[in-house]
Amino acid sequence: MYSVVILANGLFPSTEKPLELLSQADKVVCCDGAAAKLLMWGREPDLIVGDMDSLSDSLKKRYSNIIKKCDGQEDNDLSKAFRSCLDYHPSSIHILGATGIREDHTLANVSLLAEYTELLKDIDCTVDIMTDSGVFYSGFESMQSYECKEGAEVSIFAFDNTLKMTCEGLKYQTDHVIFDSLWKASLNMAKSSKFVLKLNHPAKVIVFICND
Amino acid sequence: MYSVVILANGLFPSTEKPLELLSQADKVVCCDGAAAKLLMWGREPDLIVGDMDSLSDSLKKRYSNIIKKCDGQEDNDLSKAFRSCLDYHPSSIHILGATGIREDHTLANVSLLAEYTELLKDIDCTVDIMTDSGVFYSGFESMQSYECKEGAEVSIFAFDNTLKMTCEGLKYQTDHVIFDSLWKASLNMAKSSKFVLKLNHPAKVIVFICND
Repeated sequence: MYSVVILANGLFPSTEKPLELLSQADKVVCCDGAAAKLLMWGREPDLIVGDMDSLSDSLKKRYSNIIKKCDGQEDNDLSKAFRSCLDYHPSSIHILGATGIREDHTLANVSLLAEYTELLKDIDCTVDIMTDSGVFYSGFESMQSYECKEGAEVSIFAFDNTLKMTCEGLKYQTDHVIFDSLWKASLNMAKSSKFVLKLNHPAKVIVFICND
Repeated sequence: MYSVVILANGLFPSTEKPLELLSQADKVVCCDGAAAKLLMWGREPDLIVGDMDSLSDSLKKRYSNIIKKCDGQEDNDLSKAFRSCLDYHPSSIHILGATGIREDHTLANVSLLAEYTELLKDIDCTVDIMTDSGVFYSGFESMQSYECKEGAEVSIFAFDNTLKMTCEGLKYQTDHVIFDSLWKASLNMAKSSKFVLKLNHPAKVIVFICND
């Protein structure tokens, strides 16, 4: 097991679960200015990736040997950090700091998780977004299985109005849901420690499981 | 002008713009437990709507004459509050506290803005979601026009992969964007104090304009 945490420049984590991941990570890759937040918390970054528009000059100098400057408007700092962290051949990638502060960044980052999950399909590596309140996972197969605590609050997001989904292990059925808006399959609940989603065709699905 | 603020139970606002709206509102409708946060800030709620699962017994008693208890799992407290606030015949509805804390609530609430905007189409009333970092607006016509500060950061979200959009007044063109994921038209910038979106067919679009 080799775990990498990507620390994005949103809200720095403040609850036990994400901070535990940060403590235990083999490597921490920071998006640009997030390096300053990590330092304040008491850990040194292993790699700093981005266009360096939000890192102070003194930190740029201090970390010149671990800075990977990537310009280019075609993707954001999180995607640049994601690609870079694959060089470590991780078995798990946890993205922290991806939400909070700017809501448009939150929406964009959560949807990027689906892209990252698909990029890892031929690699033995998982990726999730952990926040102070829960975890986002993503799947793209016709059958998707998720583990959680019994009674956990669960929301499902998809971006495909041709999608039909049935579920096992959730309180509210999803058979009737048309996935044309983000609220459509939100606020469900796990009836046991596992739930299964069955899709009529492979589709990018994002699942949020609330922390207890 | 008759303005109503709906205060949802996410992050209580802390920046000037949303707090100004809260000060100036003719009525404040609170989603359930948000009433306690409003009180802490120093204003009395005018109406409290929801299933009352997050309001203390003492506040339930104190505000029994302005509590509108709505059970039912088919929609959330924000939608219950939205429907109730129409009784005031407002000319503007600003939704505060709709983001932060639970990210799945953030995603769901932002997407609900499109539904609310459509519900107001025959009424002379606007609705937006104001956060500490910016404002979400929604439109559903083939031509949509938005005002902002020159240089403002702008993100566009839609949930329709058949949509084609051209834009005027934004730094990056949207002609090539396929709206099948939330990151696809995020992180743009206004070149002047107004921008116009032209769609190939009417569609629900959500626009986020970052505060300066």
